[in-house]
Order: sequence, then structure tokens, then C-alpha cells
Amino acid sequence: MNDESTVTPWEVTGNVDYEKLIKQFGVERIDSQLLKRIERKAGELHPFLRRGIFFSHRDMNWLLDEFERENMLENMLDVIALGFNPKLHENMLDVIALGFNPKKTHFLVDTLHAKSMYKPACEVAKRITLSTIKSSFGFNDSVNLGQIFYTAMQSVPAFFPSYLAGKNIPCLIPHAIDQDPHFRLARDILPKMGYYKPAAIHSVFLPPLTGPGGKMSSSISTSAVYTIDSPKVMKDKIMKYAFSGGQASIKEHREKGGNPDIDVSYQWLRFFEDDDNKLKKIHDDYKNGKLLTGELKQILVEKLSPFLERHQEARAKAGDKIEDYMFHE
Amino acid sequence: MNDESTVTPWEVTGNVDYEKLIKQFGVERIDSQLLKRIERKAGELHPFLRRGIFFSHRDMNWLLDEFERENMLENMLDVIALGFNPKLHENMLDVIALGFNPKKTHFLVDTLHAKSMYKPACEVAKRITLSTIKSSFGFNDSVNLGQIFYTAMQSVPAFFPSYLAGKNIPCLIPHAIDQDPHFRLARDILPKMGYYKPAAIHSVFLPPLTGPGGKMSSSISTSAVYTIDSPKVMKDKIMKYAFSGGQASIKEHREKGGNPDIDVSYQWLRFFEDDDNKLKKIHDDYKNGKLLTGELKQILVEKLSPFLERHQEARAKAGDKIEDYMFHE
Repeated sequence: MNDESTVTPWEVTGNVDYEKLIKQFGVERIDSQLLKRIERKAGELHPFLRRGIFFSHRDMNWLLDEFERENMLENMLDVIALGFNPKLHENMLDVIALGFNPKKTHFLVDTLHAKSMYKPACEVAKRITLSTIKSSFGFNDSVNLGQIFYTAMQSVPAFFPSYLAGKNIPCLIPHAIDQDPHFRLARDILPKMGYYKPAAIHSVFLPPLTGPGGKMSSSISTSAVYTIDSPKVMKDKIMKYAFSGGQASIKEHREKGGNPDIDVSYQWLRFFEDDDNKLKKIHDDYKNGKLLTGELKQILVEKLSPFLERHQEARAKAGDKIEDYMFHE
Repeated sequence: MNDESTVTPWEVTGNVDYEKLIKQFGVERIDSQLLKRIERKAGELHPFLRRGIFFSHRDMNWLLDEFERENMLENMLDVIALGFNPKLHENMLDVIALGFNPKKTHFLVDTLHAKSMYKPACEVAKRITLSTIKSSFGFNDSVNLGQIFYTAMQSVPAFFPSYLAGKNIPCLIPHAIDQDPHFRLARDILPKMGYYKPAAIHSVFLPPLTGPGGKMSSSISTSAVYTIDSPKVMKDKIMKYAFSGGQASIKEHREKGGNPDIDVSYQWLRFFEDDDNKLKKIHDDYKNGKLLTGELKQILVEKLSPFLERHQEARAKAGDKIEDYMFHE
């Protein structure tokens, strides 16, 4: 396998070494001690935490301290920022269909909410020089002014509840690790404006269907299953494109077993199969050759079919609910 | 005198050679033919045009063509953009006190009107690269993101009436020549968005009290008379600081005469004395030594005193009228 990988907010390629990223980005591993602490507070651990899908963090211990001091509970909000996004409407429908609570979830859209967001974004912008943003993102002089100012707009949700409330409210941002440069910059600037640094937990990437490396791309239809794909289309994609960790022949597979660590169907089941025992059995059966790639794919298809059906049903009704989720200035 | 001069949107120093600027900036001289054409349309010429205070332009002939086709009359507006300005409130009071018509004058403030201005500004921003803005303004990487995005916001008034009306409306921007780089950029970008290039007329600078070169600066109190200075303070400043074009002694002055071209009091009278005959007499009397510098200063003081009194009276009542001038989204 290729050892070279690239992880930036715009490009994820190659076989990502997350251990290396922890050092490179200067983030902290989510270790067993932190998991125990979260479990004590939350009552249970989400599968994404149990399985290391969220694998690193910034300031989670501080955040839990604040949580214990009850500085957060009453103010907890899910602010979802959707900016400069040609798929804005589609993304809103998906978020609503996933069942976020409209009382606590607020869509912030830069072009719709500029009245509220522009002024705090300017406060951020005047504290970031061109050289800082160029070194943070690897920009050169061919980028346009919109891309440059976007970083300032994108940092607003990290202190928006504090800005509106006129008092400091801790903020946790869950995001895939590739977006870290944006929030690293926000963490530098926000204390200069009197706000807490946003805490963060970082996830690995859902691998593309077509291979174990990189990140699923919505613009390559063979690399992704879309939330609007019918179960039939989903099945065809997985059967045809899902990268296999199996052997060249059934005979060889029975003898040597498959490799779940690179098998995309198994990797996807880590995101979608909540039952740890079932998942472990699939892992072991595949590894010792009892389970064939086609059978593993079938398990994934059967897991995703009811999810897609439910999701699409909820999604069809979501259009009427957008207003309930939209932030009102 | 120093032949070196600098003219940028942020710095004007030295003895400005306006003939050279016309070539350097690629603008057109306001010549006698154009003045006649304006006079035919307007009925008379404003003293600032008669005296060459507005000395160059872009696309004025095109604008007059449009004017003749009556494409402009009904839509003529005075949109005044006041952005990123620590003296915003003070500037508003001055504009109102000067008697602009509130039915046709609209204050646009980037932070107050981001709801309307941010989206069109993004349309501009995405068409300007960092290299373009760096070469246009001589920026380096130490500028902040706010300064960078400001150019996009500042170009919005040049097409805002068209943007709101959903049809193309010609636009004329009167401004001092140092701001040309902003509008040169706007002229490059706006046609790509389907809008007319903004036409412009350019003025010379009101020289600082302390010398004939450069531009009056509001941050150097000895270089400027403020609209809130009492007549007494104004008189003291002019008597003490106004750069003189006179000779070292009265005797020498009577013999050789003064130089009105570098005398700041005379230069200011060109802006404030509307009567051409009076102005010519002052010019000639000073040049042939009949008028002493002290007497010339006294003429300026007597001209400015009633202006300041009237202005400050109107200004004291202007605070209540800001809402009438504010653009309503």
C-alpha cells in the first residue's frame, strides 16, 4: 500500500496514518481514560467513540470540567454552519431527516445570515494576516478573495452563541480531521477576542467505495452512496465497486481469510452496525475465511436498505421543516 | 520643491503632478469640450468643474449619452458608502448638515447592511484573485483579511441600485483621484457580472494647512480645520499654520508678489469662494504684492466663519435625521 498521504481541508488522498496525523496536527489521542470520563458523564459511549471513529481531540478535558461546573448544560446548542455550499438545500434536508432536534439546532448560512455573521467575521478577519492564512492552508496568490474571507465567516459558529449571549459559552466542534486547519486558526484568534478556544473531537474518514485510502467524495458517484440513492442503486454500487479485502479465489479466501482492515464494506459497517457483538463476529468470520466478500457485501446492503428507506421517507417531509431549523436574526 | 510624490488610496505625499497622474492612471482629462457638454445639460457649471478641481474622468461621455437617452434621470440616486470607518457617525452628521436630499441619498454601511451587501460582495470577491489585489494596491502578505475583503464590499455601491432594481443603471462616482485603484478594479469586475462599468470624475486634493503638497489628514489636527472647530479655533489654526506663498518680508512681498499656486489659504479659497470675479481679484492682488499673506488669511477666515456657523447649526440637528438617510433593507 502507498505510504504517502495528503490531508488538507480540500484534499484527502492515500492511506491515511492517523497516528502520524495526531503528531503532525498536534492534537491529543482520545484514550481510555478520556473515554471512561465521557462514559461517566453520558451514561454510555456512542459507537463512534467506542470504535475510535472519533480518535483525537482538542481540550475535551477542559470541556468536561466546564460541563461538570454546569457552565454548558443549559446553553447546549447544535449550531450547524452551511456556507458557500452548492448543495445547501440538499444538506439541510439530510440533517433534518437524521432527526436533529429543531429546538436546539440552528442552520447558519453565510449568505442568508450575513446581517448577524458579517460583523463578528470582520472581527476575526482583522486578526488574520495573509501570510498566516497562506501558511495555514497552503494558499498561493491565485486564490480569490471569497476563499480568503470564507475562513473568517466559517469561524463565526465557534463563538456565535457566546457573541449573541454576551457571555462566554464553551463550544465543541465535532468534525473530520481534515478540517482541523480551519479550527486551529479559530483557536488562535478567538482568545484575542475574549472568547474560549473551541474544543474539538476529530473523526477518521468514511473511505470511498472504490478503495481503502482517501475520503469519500460526493462528486465521484462510484465512490459514494448518496442519501437519495434507491436501495437498488445502493446495492448495485456496493456489489460492483466496493473495494474487497478478500483473496483472488474462493479457495484461497477460505484458506488465508480476508483483510477487514482494508475491506470497504467492513469499514462501512463500523459506521452503520451499532451492535458490537455482531460487528466482531463479521470481522472474525471474514478474517478467518468463513465469510466471503460477496456475503459481507450482502450484510452491508441489508444494513443500509432500511436506513435509506427510513431516511428518504423523512427526507421527503423535511422541506416543510427547513424554516423551523433556520436561525432567525 | 520635491518632485517625488506618492498617490495611493492610503497615502498621498509630495507635490502631486496631476498631469502625470492622468497618464499613470490611464484616465481622461476633463477638457473644454466635455465641460461645454456638461454645461449644456446642467444649465451651468459647478465651480469645482470650472476651476479644474475635478480634473479627470472615466466614461463621462458615455454617461452623458445615457443621460440623453433618459436612462438615468428617474433612477438618479446619491448612494453614499461609509464603511470600516471609526468616524462613521461624525461623517453622517456632516453629510446631512451639507444639505443632501434625504429622498435621494442613502447611507450604506457595510456592518449595518451586510444582509444586503454581503452576497453581491461575494460575487465580486470570487472574481478577484490575491495576485490581482496585491498588484492593484501594492499589498503584501502582512495585510489582514478584513482589508482584503473590504475592496469587494466597497465596490458594491457601484452596482447596488442595478442589483436591487434587477436592471442596469448607469453609475457615476465622484471621488478624489487617490481612490482610483478601488474603482479601476470595480470597472474590471462589474462587466463580468453583467453590470455597466461605473463612470467617475476625479478631484484634486484639498491641501493640508501646513503645506502645498500631499492631502489633508483628519488625524493631524494642525493640518486640517475640522467641521466641528469653532470659528475661533479655525482662525487660530489658519493664522498659525496655513502655509504661505508670500515673501520673507513685507517689503519683499510688495516688490516681488506672492505665489498663489502654493499658498494654502488661496488654494482653500478655490474650494470655498464661489464668485469667480472675487477669486480672480484675490489671486491677482496676491500675485502682484498688493495683498499680504495675513490679509489673504483674513479673507479665508471670513469666508469660513459663516460656513462653519451654519454648518454646526445644521449639524446639531442632524442626529435626529440619520434614520431618514439610512438605507432600509
